[in-house]
Amino acid sequence: MKLSQTFAKTTKTAPADEMSESAKLLIRAGYIYKEMAGVYDYLPLGMRTLDNIMQVIREEMDAIGGQELKMTALQPRDAWEASGRWSDDVMDVWFKTKLNAGGELGLGCTHEEPLTRLMKSYISSYKDLPVYAYQFQTKFRNELRAKSGIMRTREFMMKDLYSFSKNREEHEAFYEKCAESYKKIFNRLGIGNDTFRTFASGGAFSKYSDEFQTLCEVGEDIIYLDREKGIAVNEEVYNDEVLADLGLDKSKLEQCKAAEVGNIFTLGYRFTDALDLCYNDENGQRQKVFMGSYGIGPSRVMGVIAEKLSDDKGLVWPEEIAPYKYYVVAIGDKAAEIAEDLHNKAPEQIILDDRKNARNGEKFADADLLGIPYRIVISDKTLAEDKVEIKKRTESETKLLPLSDFIAKLVQK
Amino acid sequence: MKLSQTFAKTTKTAPADEMSESAKLLIRAGYIYKEMAGVYDYLPLGMRTLDNIMQVIREEMDAIGGQELKMTALQPRDAWEASGRWSDDVMDVWFKTKLNAGGELGLGCTHEEPLTRLMKSYISSYKDLPVYAYQFQTKFRNELRAKSGIMRTREFMMKDLYSFSKNREEHEAFYEKCAESYKKIFNRLGIGNDTFRTFASGGAFSKYSDEFQTLCEVGEDIIYLDREKGIAVNEEVYNDEVLADLGLDKSKLEQCKAAEVGNIFTLGYRFTDALDLCYNDENGQRQKVFMGSYGIGPSRVMGVIAEKLSDDKGLVWPEEIAPYKYYVVAIGDKAAEIAEDLHNKAPEQIILDDRKNARNGEKFADADLLGIPYRIVISDKTLAEDKVEIKKRTESETKLLPLSDFIAKLVQK
Repeated sequence: MKLSQTFAKTTKTAPADEMSESAKLLIRAGYIYKEMAGVYDYLPLGMRTLDNIMQVIREEMDAIGGQELKMTALQPRDAWEASGRWSDDVMDVWFKTKLNAGGELGLGCTHEEPLTRLMKSYISSYKDLPVYAYQFQTKFRNELRAKSGIMRTREFMMKDLYSFSKNREEHEAFYEKCAESYKKIFNRLGIGNDTFRTFASGGAFSKYSDEFQTLCEVGEDIIYLDREKGIAVNEEVYNDEVLADLGLDKSKLEQCKAAEVGNIFTLGYRFTDALDLCYNDENGQRQKVFMGSYGIGPSRVMGVIAEKLSDDKGLVWPEEIAPYKYYVVAIGDKAAEIAEDLHNKAPEQIILDDRKNARNGEKFADADLLGIPYRIVISDKTLAEDKVEIKKRTESETKLLPLSDFIAKLVQK
Repeated sequence: MKLSQTFAKTTKTAPADEMSESAKLLIRAGYIYKEMAGVYDYLPLGMRTLDNIMQVIREEMDAIGGQELKMTALQPRDAWEASGRWSDDVMDVWFKTKLNAGGELGLGCTHEEPLTRLMKSYISSYKDLPVYAYQFQTKFRNELRAKSGIMRTREFMMKDLYSFSKNREEHEAFYEKCAESYKKIFNRLGIGNDTFRTFASGGAFSKYSDEFQTLCEVGEDIIYLDREKGIAVNEEVYNDEVLADLGLDKSKLEQCKAAEVGNIFTLGYRFTDALDLCYNDENGQRQKVFMGSYGIGPSRVMGVIAEKLSDDKGLVWPEEIAPYKYYVVAIGDKAAEIAEDLHNKAPEQIILDDRKNARNGEKFADADLLGIPYRIVISDKTLAEDKVEIKKRTESETKLLPLSDFIAKLVQK
């Protein structure tokens, strides 16, 4: 990408009503645009970052047998009436709307009901099970307050997977498999070291649910963390009985603020009962399908990463999700020509700062603000030795790298 | 993909209330699921097909300088009040909803207003222009009737590009460039031969707008086509004056039914006036930005292709958009082993029909119903000669192909 040709420029200011530090940075860096509180557009750099996060999640969901589909936001009421969740008193985050042809529709904030109903068309025998179906889908939640930037919004991207199993045993095996998969995902996203499986309230069908909580000063949750064991307990279930149950020693627990980046629930027969999703077992007996749900909000994760890893100079993206890997600045005419060649070789890896009206100091500041993992400076001085200068976003030291080594890195990808 | 492991099975029936032939086929083939009239989920095969269509469009939009972003469905009212389009009397397809925090929001059915407002943050000088910004975004339209399957729905995928130019001259050059790009797109999508640039009503800033109309028996438009010149006139502007203006000879025109698959409009100052989007020109003079809009509905295009190319056996997908290229059926144990190997080599190119409980006749029928471009049959008989049988979906003849040639095709991709 050439900076001279991109419309979304960096700015020194963010909207006055923006409370979230990460959102201020994302706006200033030209990653997002604020439509209103809790409603943000994704500009080209923001979209690429979000897409990269989604792609990591997609690969790991496919690896455990997930099948991707895409359901609708518009929700007819019947399936939700069957489960008892149509009423605003039961689900207070509904956006409802009227159909010109008559009747009321909701905007999906989750998809248990419609997917359970859909599966009635495809699941009838034990041979059809298990099914693991997931989607990346825009959810709508009518939040009363929205002050956390893209960490909590009224319209957001969600990965929701739902498992349909023959019985609890089959369900539990997949539940653990997905928990392992979530660990891989958060490792790849660069927050693995500070993200912990956290025991939280369960429901009618399980003692606990599992949250994945990332240590974060602006997080909305309090967790009690056993660093040695790498697990935590959410404040909501933090009591002596639970600690004894989990074999945790109170004196070893740290109280931390954390942001929830993923969750998995045992749903049991909650929705298959309501919507009558059954199968015939090996003996021809009719059985209810056993369900689970597994969520990660990619846009929320992006906000948590921006919040956690940024420094006083700007954003800091882990390599796997950065919109581009290299930010290239050329000093001098010959350097500019070479930079242009490098960009043309690998436009998907390079942001070329070819702005004519920006000083070098501004370019270096923007390289930091944008959070691109490596800054490359090409100048006549470095070219005299056939080298380029490379600096990691997270380090202050610069190094000289042979130009041919840098070209090899670009081709490698 | 292995058929034994996919939940979305083929069925003999479609919902009784489904009127559209293409939607019936798409439902029976397991590509889509009907939530209600005009609201369809995309199942794994349908999603892949839609993604392929979007990728073709994306590549061509990027090639003419498009910058991809993603705006929100939720729309605060102010920008729309500025343009006079907030009222349901002016735009009768609005879905409106109430915000719990107070106030009313709309669900975007198009994005001129919010994007024009967004650009006020980034466009201030002639150096910032032109800008070509586009998105793939879910639109909502509160249609009174929805009987055309995925060709006209209440929630659908839209590619909308908006151009921001310094003046009419710069605008017109891009307008023609985009029209050429649309031709390439429809060629790649396999409907180029039957898709024609069609003159339709313009607005305050242009005599005509341009539609891209695909000949289609269930299309909602009537066009008058000059096949020799490859252009057409929409019924709405079909009169002697227009024909003279366009240099068309009435006697050479065919009256045809057609479905609109794309459109481009000169918007002029309609929205930049309302929202005050200006720039300073080379002489420091304040000027209004000149706009255009360029739409293609990928889900609608998918419906038109399903409608147009299908035959009595099922769907027929052009190679570039088919969810998979080969449908592999194995007959015999050794053949099954080899088929499994081939699938593992190229799971992105092959549907392996490994169902144990399906007869060969059913498998062949499903290969046709799914519309996969090539059917490959591997049997002990063909293997005796180290060959596989290959049949194009659009031909009845089968041919023998050396197994090594087929493997080379898979590796090539």
